Parts: sequence; structure tokens; C-alpha cells
Amino acid sequence: MPAIAFLECVRCHHHVSADVPQTLCPLCAGSLYVRYDMDSLKHTAKRVNPARYAAESAASLGMWRYRDVLPSVTPVTLAEGWTPMLRSKRYPNLFVKEEGANPTGTFKARGLCLAVTMAKHYGLQHLAVPSAGNAAGALAAYAAAAGIAAHIFMPKDVPFANYLEGVVYGADVTMVDGLISDCARMVGERIKAQKETGTDPSQVWFDISTLKEPFRVEGKKTMGYELVEQLGWEYPDAVFYPTGGGVGLIGMWKAFEEMEALGWVTGKRPRMFALQSSGCAPVAQAYAEGKDVSTFFEHASTFAAGLRVPKPYGDVIILEIVRASGGAALAYSDEAILASVLDWAKQEGIFLSPEGAAATAAYDSLIASGDLKSTDRVVLFNTGGGLKYTDMTAEAMHLRRPGTLPTSMPVGGIITPV
Amino acid sequence: MPAIAFLECVRCHHHVSADVPQTLCPLCAGSLYVRYDMDSLKHTAKRVNPARYAAESAASLGMWRYRDVLPSVTPVTLAEGWTPMLRSKRYPNLFVKEEGANPTGTFKARGLCLAVTMAKHYGLQHLAVPSAGNAAGALAAYAAAAGIAAHIFMPKDVPFANYLEGVVYGADVTMVDGLISDCARMVGERIKAQKETGTDPSQVWFDISTLKEPFRVEGKKTMGYELVEQLGWEYPDAVFYPTGGGVGLIGMWKAFEEMEALGWVTGKRPRMFALQSSGCAPVAQAYAEGKDVSTFFEHASTFAAGLRVPKPYGDVIILEIVRASGGAALAYSDEAILASVLDWAKQEGIFLSPEGAAATAAYDSLIASGDLKSTDRVVLFNTGGGLKYTDMTAEAMHLRRPGTLPTSMPVGGIITPV
Repeated sequence: MPAIAFLECVRCHHHVSADVPQTLCPLCAGSLYVRYDMDSLKHTAKRVNPARYAAESAASLGMWRYRDVLPSVTPVTLAEGWTPMLRSKRYPNLFVKEEGANPTGTFKARGLCLAVTMAKHYGLQHLAVPSAGNAAGALAAYAAAAGIAAHIFMPKDVPFANYLEGVVYGADVTMVDGLISDCARMVGERIKAQKETGTDPSQVWFDISTLKEPFRVEGKKTMGYELVEQLGWEYPDAVFYPTGGGVGLIGMWKAFEEMEALGWVTGKRPRMFALQSSGCAPVAQAYAEGKDVSTFFEHASTFAAGLRVPKPYGDVIILEIVRASGGAALAYSDEAILASVLDWAKQEGIFLSPEGAAATAAYDSLIASGDLKSTDRVVLFNTGGGLKYTDMTAEAMHLRRPGTLPTSMPVGGIITPV
Repeated sequence: MPAIAFLECVRCHHHVSADVPQTLCPLCAGSLYVRYDMDSLKHTAKRVNPARYAAESAASLGMWRYRDVLPSVTPVTLAEGWTPMLRSKRYPNLFVKEEGANPTGTFKARGLCLAVTMAKHYGLQHLAVPSAGNAAGALAAYAAAAGIAAHIFMPKDVPFANYLEGVVYGADVTMVDGLISDCARMVGERIKAQKETGTDPSQVWFDISTLKEPFRVEGKKTMGYELVEQLGWEYPDAVFYPTGGGVGLIGMWKAFEEMEALGWVTGKRPRMFALQSSGCAPVAQAYAEGKDVSTFFEHASTFAAGLRVPKPYGDVIILEIVRASGGAALAYSDEAILASVLDWAKQEGIFLSPEGAAATAAYDSLIASGDLKSTDRVVLFNTGGGLKYTDMTAEAMHLRRPGTLPTSMPVGGIITPV
């Protein structure tokens, strides 16, 4: 595992040290990326090391199989990453990256695994996060594993699973009558107040919001390494990524850049598609209007809870990547998303999250319009398992447990054995 | 992948052919095991093949990494198996096998993957299963993937996730005002009636109940191969297995037998512990009373839904294995189980299923009593992810979503941002 050379601002390219915890660029408040000495890595990092992989296959390495390109620290791990890549049974060139197999059931585990690992390394004692739900659950789990206090702020109407995770993992849970943007503001205000009132520095919360510290994106980049390795160290033609905060997409782009610098992959990078719900589509709207930055999306509402981010912090970077790659940012209705959840469950045996189904809805639509060819090799991310959304999906289906509401029983019935 | 030599009755050792679908032994109604030509396998099957594993690590092989010892067919796969083995942060010799990472979130995926694979191979069109919940969800998923009709029968008070799975995967769902034993009787009666009324044989349901056909146990045996491989091809001192139907435990014992025949592992087999809830403890009761067979457990009731099997079909085999291995069958109260769920979530960052927490409760208790030493290497199965039980676990905690019940808010509150 390599030492971190420095942290680099993605906006003004200023360098800061990784010896102490950092949040944003001290000069311009841009997001910080982890940088390594790539020339030296080129000689030491291994793309494939058959002997090592065979020996290690017995362990549960997960995303730490890429430790040659991750910070040199002792991982706080729950066996995150190295998720399955499923080939669609109907579309032979479509692959579903099943992030539901991660601890806490979503891709959020990758970023929070690395961010909590580094927080432990730095000796931080209090981590705070605003979340649409799944980041809160993942932080709660990794903080519990690390013995660090987690302070999580979520909208009051997140999937019930997210609330329960916060409680069982012993986090300090605050449910907010608002959206993730309100949660973010509250976290910022709390930390400001702690500092102003002279709170013992060791007790001041560290804001672990995505892109406001350098390690969540660094953990998420492993999705980029994995998809390329799982395709035999080749790029696909396109990547479909459900976009709330959009940091998974940003992280994959960083991975592509690194892999090219290391000589691990060559050729044309994939077209990157950012998929949203029309109930909360700030990036798709900015893309359609030809803008470089998104506008706060008013009255955000969708059962794809993870997409309910009315103004993603990384909007500028996402729009840049989408355009540079020849992709697009697109939004689909909750009805189309639900229809795609049911289509994939019944036809493929895969229960997608609503977020993942925004991507499958997009795939169908782009194949139908001819913008995508059925021969194009596509990797589509199911960013979380469908089981994490039982209440949201059942509500969208107007489905209740048989017996609790007589009119809502779609199949079978309750039978009393004789 | 080897051809199946024959199917062998575990009771009278009669051989039947695997060329056609089989259920129970035609002579004595015992369960059938898949048998291969082990002498020939000994020369062809590879325990470790570094070159192959390195090349294959890019694919999502899951339990099919053991295809050298699985029937030679084209898998209907959703990337089941090869689940993480997590080392406890508090007990350095305790490993948690995280079966929640499987498709549909439980170990049931392994058995139903292989059973549906074989059903497709045989051309079966209708599969029926009585279930405590998770087998129904897994059958629904694999049947959808295979294009086969699934008829699932579950108690009406299963975790909501199980009901939703059945519906979204398009299964024919029947909710029963009773237990899995009632469901089993109903499936049997339906099939009998279909045959008596001259239903077209291709439309008669095939009963895919565990141990009533040979392939579910064959899929579950992969847990035995995995735990031994993940420990470096060595046996642990003990295996802790939450026991409803108990077929995972039975399958692992078959795996140990095979691995020894193949020369893949030597030494003393692990002590096998079967763990139950005192709300439904037929095997623990029979064990305590020195009996060879269990008695139907009246008024079965526990939030560990998967343990609600009042008389497991494999009780005789389970009791034999437990005793032969120097293990035990034990039961713990729902209160102790819930306490262990919360302990593991808060201290280790692992959200266990109630079933898994019956095993962790047992571990604590046996360490305390001295029946187990902290230096004993133990593999404990979390048979499903905690997220599959959000409603059951929340109910056991008397927890409601904040705002829906003012008295039940354990942490934080709803805050309206100003």
C-alpha cells in the first residue's frame, strides 16, 4: 500500500498535506483528491498477480484487493466491495454491478469504509454526516466497528431500514423534517457552534460529507477498478450510474485516470450516464439546459430515496465528466422506475433498488431511441439492494401485508388450514 | 464439473438415478444425497488451482468455484456464495460467515440456486415450496431467473420483506394462517390432488421442500467447502449454526465427508452446534432429553422467523451430527437474542439476523460456562442479513419510526430546520 503523496484540490490544484485531517481546499473550498507518486506506483503496483490473488482468494479482501492504490493504513473493514457483476439474461452485453452485496446493502460502504479507516488513523472521535439515508447507515456501521461516535442527520421519511440501522449501530440519530440539504446545513451549523463555544477540539465533530473530505471519493473509486478488472481489464462502452450525490461516478473517473497512468487499461473511456428521477433531477435539468452547474431542485420528491439530493455538491464535476465522455444526464418518472423494478425482478430474478431501476429504465429508453446499440457493452450500477427499500417500494406499489388492508392483496390470500 | 454417479438414500443407502427428477427414496422415503465417483474426482478435482483462480477472480463465480464437486449443468446463477468471513474485533478466534451477502440476503440462495438449476435441466415447469420466509424469497428469485413458475406458501406473519419478494419476483404467493408445517401439508395435498384429478404431468407442481429432493442440501454443502478454504484448508474447532430446518448443518457435514475423501482436508472435524430460539426449540429439546428424534414444538413463536420450524424434516440427521461431533443443540430466549443483535451492531458494526444472534448468544454463553475456550477457533454463521428483518427486529425493540408513535423514540427526534 502506497503512502499518500499529497491531497490535491480538484478546482485550483493546490496541494495540502495528508498528515492531518483535511476537509476542503483552504484556498478555494474545492474538493480534495488523494494523490500518490504514480511513477513509483507504476513499478510497484500490480494489476494482476496470479500467485497473490490465488493465495488471497481465501481471505475476504473485497475492495482492499486494490490496496496497491489505496492509502497505506490498517483497514476498518466489514468486507466491502468486490461485488458481483451479473450478466443480463435478456441483453447479453449488459452487466449489472450488484452493489447490494456490500455491508449495509449499498455502495456507500466503500466510501465510508475508507473515510472511517482514515478517521481512525487520524484519531478523530466524532464523525457527522448529512445523508439521504444510506450513507448514514454505512457511517453508523463503520463508526461502530471503529469505536468512533457517529452523528447522523437524515430526512424523517427515509426508508425505515436507514432509521433502524442508525439505532441498532448505536449512532446519534437526528431525523429532520426536510431534505439532505437541510441536514447538511444543520451539520455545518452544529460544528460552527462547537468551535465558537470553545468545545474541546477532540470533541468537535468532523464533517464527513462526501467531497468535503478526500476519502469517501477515494473509496468509491474502487468501483472503477472493479468494473474494468471484471471485464478483463477493458473499458465498457458505457457506464450507467444512478446519481444522487454522484460521487460514485466521480470516483470511477478518478480510477480511470489512475489506471491509465499506471498502464493498467488503454482505449476510449466509457460514456458516462448519470440517471435521476424526474422527482429530483437537478443534474439532468442542468444537462438539458446546457449549464455547467445545477440549480436547487424545489419540492424534491421520489421513492428513489437515494436520488433525493436537490443540489449535489459535485454537480460541476459530474456535468463535466458526463459531457467529456459523450454520455448524458437523464431523468425518468417514478412510474417508469417502478415498472423497471418489477420488470427486472420478474424477468431476471434481480430485485433492484429504485435508484438502480432509474438506470435500467434509461437503458431501455436509450436502446429504443437508438442512442445506444444492443451491441454496446454497458455496465449498469445497482447502487443498493432492493431489500433496503421494502417500505418505499411496497408503498409505490400500493401494497400492504395481506390481512392489514383487504383491498390491496395482489396475489393469493390468507388461507386458514383445515 | 462431474457427472452425478447416482443419488443415495441417507437412510437405507438405496441408489436411484439422477437422470429424472427425484424426491424421496422410493423404498423408505429417506432423503437423497448426490454422489459422485470420488475415485475419479480425486484425480480431476482441484482444491486450489492458482492459475485458474487468478483468471477466474475477475468473474463472479461465487459458490461455483466448487464446480469440480457440483453437478455438471449450466448454472442459473445470481452470484450466490463465496460470502465474506469476518473476524470478530473482540474475539480473535471467532469468525462470522456473513451469508447476508447472498442474493435475496440469506444462505437459502445456495440451495435454491442448485435446485432451480437442476429443475431447469430436467425441464420442470412448476416448483412449489413451503417456507418460513427466506426459502420462498430465494425460490421466487431463482425461478424468475430460470423462467419457471414458483408456488410459495408462507406463514402470514413472515417478515414483510419475504412477502414483498414473492410479489415482486412474480411468484404465486399464498399466505397461510399457520406455520411452515401447515404450509408443507398444504403443498403435499395440492400436489396429490393435481395427480388424482389427472392434471397434465408437465403442469403438476414439483415439491422443492428441503431434504425432499436432493439438490438443496447439495447447494448448501458449499458453505462447508468455503469455511474450510477460508481458514486455509483447515477445520475450525467448532461451527455454530442457527437451526430451523438445519439443512445447512447437514450440508456442511456432507462437504466434510467429501473433502476428506478427496484428500482436501484432514484432522478432527469441528464440533457442530445447532442453535435455536426457546420459542421454537424442537432439536434443542430432543438433544437435552437424549432423544434421537424431535417432537412437534407446540405454539412455536419467535422473532427469529427462520427458526420457526416446529419439527424439522432432518431432525434425526441433525441430532446424529451434533452428537457425533461433540457439539450440542441449544436454545436461547428472544430477549437474549435481541440483546446479542444490539451488542454485535454496536460493538462490531455487524447487523445480525435474529437467527445469527442465536448463535452469538450461544457463543457468549459457552465461553462463560467454560464449555468453549477463547482459544478455540469458531466459525459462526449469520445465515441472513439483519436488513431482511427490519420489521421483526424493530417490533422486538418496540421501535417505531419517529413521529408515528410519540413514546417510542429512543434517540434524537424530528427537528424542523429553521
